Amino acid sequence: MTTRGAHVLDAVVRLIARSPPEALSIRNVAREAGVSIAQVQYYFRTKDELVLRAFEHVTAALEAELDRVDRSGSPLEVLRRMILSWLPLDEPRREAVLVWLALTARAPTSPQLAAVAARMDATLRRELALGLRNAQAAGELPAHLDAETHALLLLAVIDGLSTQALAGDAVATRIEAALDAHLALLAA
Amino acid sequence: MTTRGAHVLDAVVRLIARSPPEALSIRNVAREAGVSIAQVQYYFRTKDELVLRAFEHVTAALEAELDRVDRSGSPLEVLRRMILSWLPLDEPRREAVLVWLALTARAPTSPQLAAVAARMDATLRRELALGLRNAQAAGELPAHLDAETHALLLLAVIDGLSTQALAGDAVATRIEAALDAHLALLAA
Repeated sequence: MTTRGAHVLDAVVRLIARSPPEALSIRNVAREAGVSIAQVQYYFRTKDELVLRAFEHVTAALEAELDRVDRSGSPLEVLRRMILSWLPLDEPRREAVLVWLALTARAPTSPQLAAVAARMDATLRRELALGLRNAQAAGELPAHLDAETHALLLLAVIDGLSTQALAGDAVATRIEAALDAHLALLAA
Repeated sequence: MTTRGAHVLDAVVRLIARSPPEALSIRNVAREAGVSIAQVQYYFRTKDELVLRAFEHVTAALEAELDRVDRSGSPLEVLRRMILSWLPLDEPRREAVLVWLALTARAPTSPQLAAVAARMDATLRRELALGLRNAQAAGELPAHLDAETHALLLLAVIDGLSTQALAGDAVATRIEAALDAHLALLAA
């Protein structure tokens, strides 16, 4: 981790993941990071900047999951693993996706956060479209499916299942069953 | 509208829809509603109670959309209209769905908000499963699809497309195209 002020950003992420948004203040972040208020302000001048950098920090971590995806097996298996890598099915991803949800919810009232959300969405849609085209080329998915539209739909499935996993009452096994039901529809 | 303190709740909804969550305070709500702080506190003793009642207010409004859905045409057409009625494709629903997203994002750190989210999800899943079964009975959807699993998947599609519409860069026409791509997969 070489991001400037990464230890402070990690504290921000922990705070956002476990507290209501009002708990986020330069003072609370300093306490959580175990540094002085002046040190927090040395890296991040305002709370808005801190929130923005935390969102970039978390979206970068979720995008980095891509590099860790096992690429063995068929293109459709790789696509499935890629999608699973973004779902909050274990503790570390749960924290990252919690922060994604909290800050995505702020994006409609913040052009800066909306830009980060749009950038991440574009990256994920591009990767999903590529995965879909690879599976089409391998004959695993029908050639007539429009990869762009289905990438947007898959991203919605990921975002929606993540929200269900975090905020609703759906458990991990049902989340995975719903994803597999979607992939089965695609492959039919 | 006969909810106790509805004019105050409407002010809370407007504030949450357009401001970062830190802007929510008894003081700001009183100013937005044009009443005194004491009057806000007469209806809602704490800010937590106010947020909880606002979430219930908005989920009730979204559930009430069901009663306004045009029931003419085939079961699959009715199901499509039902889903569209929950997507933030015009201004009033945009406000309601913005508040849904903001408070859903808080649910993981609040058992009370999580209970409201879970209750709404259960209602929507039940309605979606019923709509799917009606379309199956009419021969519009394959009989082998598991209605419960596909209701969860459809709810994820709704939540995910809503998030895309509010926070991402996806426009209404692409949102509707993605929904139709999903329904086409189901019907295939």
